[in-house]
Amino acid sequence: MTDVRPKQDRSRATRQRLLETTIRCLATHGWETSTVGFIAAEAGLSRGAVQHHYRTREALILGALEFMFEERAALLDALPEPTGAGTARVHRVVAGLVDTIGGELFRAALQVWTVAAADPELRAAVVPLERRFARGVHLRAVRLLGVDDTDPEVRALLQATLDMARGLALADVLTDDSRRRARVVRAWSTQLAAALQPISPDSHAK
Amino acid sequence: MTDVRPKQDRSRATRQRLLETTIRCLATHGWETSTVGFIAAEAGLSRGAVQHHYRTREALILGALEFMFEERAALLDALPEPTGAGTARVHRVVAGLVDTIGGELFRAALQVWTVAAADPELRAAVVPLERRFARGVHLRAVRLLGVDDTDPEVRALLQATLDMARGLALADVLTDDSRRRARVVRAWSTQLAAALQPISPDSHAK
Repeated sequence: MTDVRPKQDRSRATRQRLLETTIRCLATHGWETSTVGFIAAEAGLSRGAVQHHYRTREALILGALEFMFEERAALLDALPEPTGAGTARVHRVVAGLVDTIGGELFRAALQVWTVAAADPELRAAVVPLERRFARGVHLRAVRLLGVDDTDPEVRALLQATLDMARGLALADVLTDDSRRRARVVRAWSTQLAAALQPISPDSHAK
Repeated sequence: MTDVRPKQDRSRATRQRLLETTIRCLATHGWETSTVGFIAAEAGLSRGAVQHHYRTREALILGALEFMFEERAALLDALPEPTGAGTARVHRVVAGLVDTIGGELFRAALQVWTVAAADPELRAAVVPLERRFARGVHLRAVRLLGVDDTDPEVRALLQATLDMARGLALADVLTDDSRRRARVVRAWSTQLAAALQPISPDSHAK
């Protein structure tokens, strides 16, 4: 069958498949295995087709991370405003943040961070990407929780929550940690809700 | 000068230097660079001397992780019982746990976890080591905080604290995160102290 979509759309679809495959390869097979040739084969593309989009392995991997960071942020934006109040709302938001930060994207990013730890050039390219993603998630957490982040206490607690989410993501890399994670997220959310209660603008509306 | 220490002591000192060098190499130069030959040269030993202690690279790296995990746990045991009560005590303990989990040991372990994520054989060897370390740190946290960990809420909050500590350790891999970390540790410690207060046996003694 001939693909009747305009050439630009096909190119965009190919690029998306390539970037998603790159993330999956990194997460499943690790950095060393994830060469341009390996990723191209997994995506059903020629090496030349890949290099048409991304000239080097580093450009491909950074492009994939950036694309996935944006996808994750868009997923948070697409979440309905959490209903309910107090602990139930906070719990729903924290669980959403933990999902956003963890999983396959985290495992892929971990491969890149680990190599970047000993490679100043890669590190210089990864740090701004990572910062932008972290800031985006933080801003969305503020919106979803309906809190005032100019309060330094609130800001530090949201950061602590995102640090905990990264720790949970790490704990899930070598073993399936989902049951323990659910308990930890619940306990944390209860404390966070209690801490945000008196300072949240929403608390006056109840 | 001739080393006049008994042969066994010299061998123990050599082994310790080798293991500490292994951790430093992994943390600074990463997994790929940290071959037996590279580590041996950094430790001022012959490859044969290293292989006398550890037959394979994996055995050397796992031996180094185990040794450092034990050293870190011993450091926690050597801490004086924290004095004071409430937030100040909890803050001191959380800061100690964050130090224990982070730093060079974390960066070295991260290299191993990342490779183990795509290597089932290495993973099978790393997971029990990692579990034992995590359990040891958890038990010491219980003792230092003087809390009752049979309470599932307390247990989940301590686990959340250790997850946060791992997230903070990760955030410090690519950039120096120490200033932000201090604020996050302080904010969470305040919440944890408030949460533990009514359930801590110590709270009755004040």
